[in-house]
Amino acid sequence: MQLLFLGTGAGMPSKQRNTTATVLKLLDERGTFWMFDCGEATQHQILHTTLKPRKLEKLFITHLHGDHIYGLPGLLGSRSFLGGDEALTIYGPVGLKAWIELTLATSKTHIKYKLNIIEIEEGIVFEDDQFIVEAKLLEHVIPCFGYKVTQKALPPELLIAKTDALGVPRGPLLKQLKEGQDVELADGRIVRSSDVTGELKEGFQVTILGDTKFCENAILLSQSADIVVHEGTFDQDTAELAGLYGHSTIMDAANVCKEAGAKHLIVNHISARFMPSDIKDMIAQVKHYEFPIYVADDFAEFDWVNGELKKVPRE
Amino acid sequence: MQLLFLGTGAGMPSKQRNTTATVLKLLDERGTFWMFDCGEATQHQILHTTLKPRKLEKLFITHLHGDHIYGLPGLLGSRSFLGGDEALTIYGPVGLKAWIELTLATSKTHIKYKLNIIEIEEGIVFEDDQFIVEAKLLEHVIPCFGYKVTQKALPPELLIAKTDALGVPRGPLLKQLKEGQDVELADGRIVRSSDVTGELKEGFQVTILGDTKFCENAILLSQSADIVVHEGTFDQDTAELAGLYGHSTIMDAANVCKEAGAKHLIVNHISARFMPSDIKDMIAQVKHYEFPIYVADDFAEFDWVNGELKKVPRE
Ligand SMILES: [Zn+2]
Ligand SMILES: [Zn+2]
Repeated sequence: MQLLFLGTGAGMPSKQRNTTATVLKLLDERGTFWMFDCGEATQHQILHTTLKPRKLEKLFITHLHGDHIYGLPGLLGSRSFLGGDEALTIYGPVGLKAWIELTLATSKTHIKYKLNIIEIEEGIVFEDDQFIVEAKLLEHVIPCFGYKVTQKALPPELLIAKTDALGVPRGPLLKQLKEGQDVELADGRIVRSSDVTGELKEGFQVTILGDTKFCENAILLSQSADIVVHEGTFDQDTAELAGLYGHSTIMDAANVCKEAGAKHLIVNHISARFMPSDIKDMIAQVKHYEFPIYVADDFAEFDWVNGELKKVPRE
Repeated sequence: MQLLFLGTGAGMPSKQRNTTATVLKLLDERGTFWMFDCGEATQHQILHTTLKPRKLEKLFITHLHGDHIYGLPGLLGSRSFLGGDEALTIYGPVGLKAWIELTLATSKTHIKYKLNIIEIEEGIVFEDDQFIVEAKLLEHVIPCFGYKVTQKALPPELLIAKTDALGVPRGPLLKQLKEGQDVELADGRIVRSSDVTGELKEGFQVTILGDTKFCENAILLSQSADIVVHEGTFDQDTAELAGLYGHSTIMDAANVCKEAGAKHLIVNHISARFMPSDIKDMIAQVKHYEFPIYVADDFAEFDWVNGELKKVPRE
């Protein structure tokens, strides 16, 4: 799993930061990637990455402000043009479906894949044998969701050396043991699954929040998360503006993670008032927290390897 | 007057060319600029120019394909955020108004200036004391307009040396002479306006066409134009595709200008299949025409000075 930030700005694009789009790469886990929000020119940002639009499987929209959705129609069209023929599902607030449908109809965009648009409420919005995605309403000037992606525990590995030692024949019995069933061998001996399988491997938990001020639901969604992506439009010196516009400071984001016992924080949605040289000062304001805190730039990528978060060096 | 090309690609953005947007700079003539089409990320392109979104006065949309309109909502919102408070008028095909209105309503975008959206038919779509804009339907896979912008003849200059020599007193009589009226002096002498004014200075004619195959209306709109901006999605070797998709080759564009007696051709809307190194070959295919032909790249700018078209060197 990797997190790739395609747009880390707020409100409008600037030369430094595009409007919001965050990619959860699940290429190892399911051969696809998911995206959270899709500001204008997200497809342009993709041109500078190795992402293939046809591998976009799910798109989660936090809220309907333009800087989070105006890149959607272009990406939907290009995904079709570039040979994407597998279904794509979009999750987001009420109003999304009518807008996407009118936009595609107005522009006579014929999409060759199945497009599902699901207008969500709070709760579990997706679940399969690998993942659960839960949504909760945050506190912004319009309805805005945060999402928590929980990877289910990975099935324990079958330890072939042990089954061989016990004389279990290669074949269907192994499958049963791997799936947790105890089996009886031809000679009457019972082999217990728990004796020939490894440990259950915990999955990861990533929380990706939309625009919000400091709020209880952000904490609930971030509970014990391995990684929290939280907006930090403002800093300590501009905290008043955060309150005024329904946004957070980097301190608010850090406090959410602290109260939630989250393990890593990545801050995005940075106001264009902050120049690249200001980011060091922002980070200094939260240096006393006991977990790692990053401010994401456009194209920043983080790799989740064996329970550790590593920033991928840019070429 | 200058023409500035913000996007010269076709269908989808590429690393080389953004989707369509063409700017007619009228800063000297009326302190504003006009834009023709507005593909996704046009506001991003503007960030790399000296254009101020608040000076955008009119936006002419040729047709509703996504690569010509998906940049509109973002630009409308940013123009307001950046302090644009003067009215903006958008001209385009039926369907434009409902889409813009739903998009702004869905994204809760509050625009502080007056936004007029005029769904046009063929004919004169705008006229004031300086300019006339005429629209005609071209031949594309969906309704698509071309526009001809005609600058009216500039009022003749008053030749002060001559009025002084004739003893016309400074004051209201001069205004009457400048406006074409003959006047009587206090001593009974008649002074003719035509004797004390310069020549009527012809305005320019610029034709900016949307997506189209070679068609009669493109020729009519280009009649005697100083500059024609015509799409050239394809070249001689890919002419079959042009026919198939309702587009033109660079030869088609040149033939329109030839039949119309136009003076300069600028080709835009270039398929992403053509690499920068292919453009020389495209131009070679039309080298036998007797008027200058340019293939515009993104950010190419052309200056109209005393009846001559000059490519502005890029910094
Ligand atoms: Zn936002
Ligand atoms: Zn087009």
